[in-house]
Amino acid sequence: MNALLTDLYQLTMAAGYWSAGKTQEIATFELFVRRMPPHRNYLIAAGLAQAAEYLLGLRFEEEEIRYLRELPQFRRVGAGFFEMLRSFRFTGDVFAVPEGTPVFAGEPLLVVRAPIIEAQIPETYLLSMVGFQTMIATKAARMVDASGGRAVIEFGTRRAHSPQAGVYAARAAYIGGCEGTSNVLAGMKYGIPVFGTAAHSWVQSFASEREAFERLQELLGPGTTYLIDTYDTLEGARQAVALGRPFWGVRLDSGNLVELSKAVRRILDEGGCREAKIMATGDLNEYKILELVAAGAPIDAFGVGTELATSHDAPSHGAVYKLVEHWSPLGRRYTAKFSQDKATLPGAKQVFRFADRDVIGRAHECPMEGAEALLRPVIVKGEPACPLPSAGEARRRARQALEALPKKLRSLFEADPPYRIELSDELIQLAEEVRARR
Amino acid sequence: MNALLTDLYQLTMAAGYWSAGKTQEIATFELFVRRMPPHRNYLIAAGLAQAAEYLLGLRFEEEEIRYLRELPQFRRVGAGFFEMLRSFRFTGDVFAVPEGTPVFAGEPLLVVRAPIIEAQIPETYLLSMVGFQTMIATKAARMVDASGGRAVIEFGTRRAHSPQAGVYAARAAYIGGCEGTSNVLAGMKYGIPVFGTAAHSWVQSFASEREAFERLQELLGPGTTYLIDTYDTLEGARQAVALGRPFWGVRLDSGNLVELSKAVRRILDEGGCREAKIMATGDLNEYKILELVAAGAPIDAFGVGTELATSHDAPSHGAVYKLVEHWSPLGRRYTAKFSQDKATLPGAKQVFRFADRDVIGRAHECPMEGAEALLRPVIVKGEPACPLPSAGEARRRARQALEALPKKLRSLFEADPPYRIELSDELIQLAEEVRARR
Repeated sequence: MNALLTDLYQLTMAAGYWSAGKTQEIATFELFVRRMPPHRNYLIAAGLAQAAEYLLGLRFEEEEIRYLRELPQFRRVGAGFFEMLRSFRFTGDVFAVPEGTPVFAGEPLLVVRAPIIEAQIPETYLLSMVGFQTMIATKAARMVDASGGRAVIEFGTRRAHSPQAGVYAARAAYIGGCEGTSNVLAGMKYGIPVFGTAAHSWVQSFASEREAFERLQELLGPGTTYLIDTYDTLEGARQAVALGRPFWGVRLDSGNLVELSKAVRRILDEGGCREAKIMATGDLNEYKILELVAAGAPIDAFGVGTELATSHDAPSHGAVYKLVEHWSPLGRRYTAKFSQDKATLPGAKQVFRFADRDVIGRAHECPMEGAEALLRPVIVKGEPACPLPSAGEARRRARQALEALPKKLRSLFEADPPYRIELSDELIQLAEEVRARR
Repeated sequence: MNALLTDLYQLTMAAGYWSAGKTQEIATFELFVRRMPPHRNYLIAAGLAQAAEYLLGLRFEEEEIRYLRELPQFRRVGAGFFEMLRSFRFTGDVFAVPEGTPVFAGEPLLVVRAPIIEAQIPETYLLSMVGFQTMIATKAARMVDASGGRAVIEFGTRRAHSPQAGVYAARAAYIGGCEGTSNVLAGMKYGIPVFGTAAHSWVQSFASEREAFERLQELLGPGTTYLIDTYDTLEGARQAVALGRPFWGVRLDSGNLVELSKAVRRILDEGGCREAKIMATGDLNEYKILELVAAGAPIDAFGVGTELATSHDAPSHGAVYKLVEHWSPLGRRYTAKFSQDKATLPGAKQVFRFADRDVIGRAHECPMEGAEALLRPVIVKGEPACPLPSAGEARRRARQALEALPKKLRSLFEADPPYRIELSDELIQLAEEVRARR
């Protein structure tokens, strides 16, 4: 399942490891974000459930093996390699930071320790899935922080990078603190609350706005949200009041949201609809939300699409997956890169969270007194180590952990100093030894 | 299949149309990009094959219907609606611009004419799929233009917005002119050439770079590309030459690519490897490619990942899906929005391509003398109208059509004036009539 959803070189390397007789060698790879994206002071780890599901279900279908055999790159590969693919299973160990945990640059989110072929093939999928969901959960958390307690709802599937990306974006946005999503499949698969009422086309399909509102209210009752800007926003608000039927609120999707929300609030209040809410949508992001809140716009809920589902101001992550340890007949080797921009640290690691700082240490330093170890076993010898937390549990973890962070880290702007990250003495020593041996 | 991969409001509106007795009303929606993304002078239409596949396969599973019935939003909906979903099929007509066609802001890429429920539900999926692939095909075409005839290969799945997005990105990038992709699944599904040899972890997993190169060459023979920057790029190049075995070339992934490529070229040439190619990778985009080419860097092929698969400088598209015509018992109505930023034009349209300009006219103006009509039937009454072109055919169409565009439109910078787009007199007249009636 999904075994070809990877870069070709993972499979040519797999064939090469097989041909070179390295199938029993054990590799440890770590997935981490090299640098914080601009303006971010934290990242919210997400996507680990899908990563684990992928590893546990990784299989090669006959059709896929046939395709590979016909590629010129596999012409010289012995038949035994394809036999091996036929019974391929992931049999290694995976450690991961629980979804919803705030993490920082350089900290491993996911560690894979497995026979080198099994550890190499998943690189592409893991980077994409964990990198993307972490990016979106982080963007959502920023928006929720900016909203000052108002609801933020994810509406971005139509602008997501494919409908399938929209499902993962909805999940990650929920973990990051959104109240829910418009994506129905994400609602069904992940138990996320779903929201949405009607679009402009609904209003346009009736002879009058009044009729469109009436029909919608008959359908949705007190849960109805009237979209009031199809023709004239204030007229739409008066129409909503005049119907005199219970409704949840109104939605504004264009115009000056500060002025319009205030004017609409007055119409609603004067019409006796003090309980009716105002939702705003339309190219919002965390900065615009912050501005609206600061300007005292009486908006109760924000619907955010494009900017959230694409992490528009930082649409890529610097996530990498690096070999840090390797056991072969020659013994155990610690590996690292020392190039200026792309340096990595050798050896399997653990992240130790203290009240005021994180220490990245070597895996065997666990437990470290007074600290929580963030990386926990998720898969052991190819079997799930424990039930994975739901998206809802990850969301609660994220909320609690964000509350515990220093307040200035939750600003939309870069905090100075950033969160304190230290390396343990043992890790520093190992890095120096590895560097000296080169 | 995939019926819940949409926004909830499409389904609440569907229930509303059903409840309001509007199931026989016919709606025409048009999908278009409102504004050109920054610096783009053209867009390359893509994603239409997946859009058609989705519409033809659209079904509601029992499990999905059960989920919907339990949502509070559907509590008041009659059982007949869910019966209808059980036998739901798309029975309408779809017109689309062939994949690989250059298009411009305001021009419909896809037109759906169907009973209003069938036309409404697909909005989210169609926008995401066609919008994303069009965005990536366009980005790829810019990179290929910048490369001045050198090969550009798509390597971005690891940074794509989910692995699934990586598959569509690979397809779209190929249509936009890339030589191929590293994404193996895209290779299998869409017949796209796949590329890739080995990563740094391959080199690191051997005791020496020399051994790593030898083993790779045994595997890949004359197709081998040595990644030479794991330890020292020039040393790596010498190693490649010293092995004295046939290979395709070398890959540079870091450092100053102008200087390194020149130095590596000298090493290759002096070692008698004049045929060996140089590939460059590492955070490239169209501007960096243009600079490298302008600086005379002897690079034969560019591998592009993050910036291509995320359309990094313009990661969202302003694609919208708007109701333009509506037949109900009241007769035919043309619909449009007249708000300043979000105005739309009423009525079903056709795009007429003349040698030097496009005219957006009304659908019934077809044929227009001397012009090619870009929108063609893809689905008629729910059945495929014709076999859809392959990704390879779309790629050839794109190359030919781009060659025919005025040269300055193929600049990486905004062309002034932009491509000439006119509205037909009949369309202008209809818009005025609709505006006057409001």
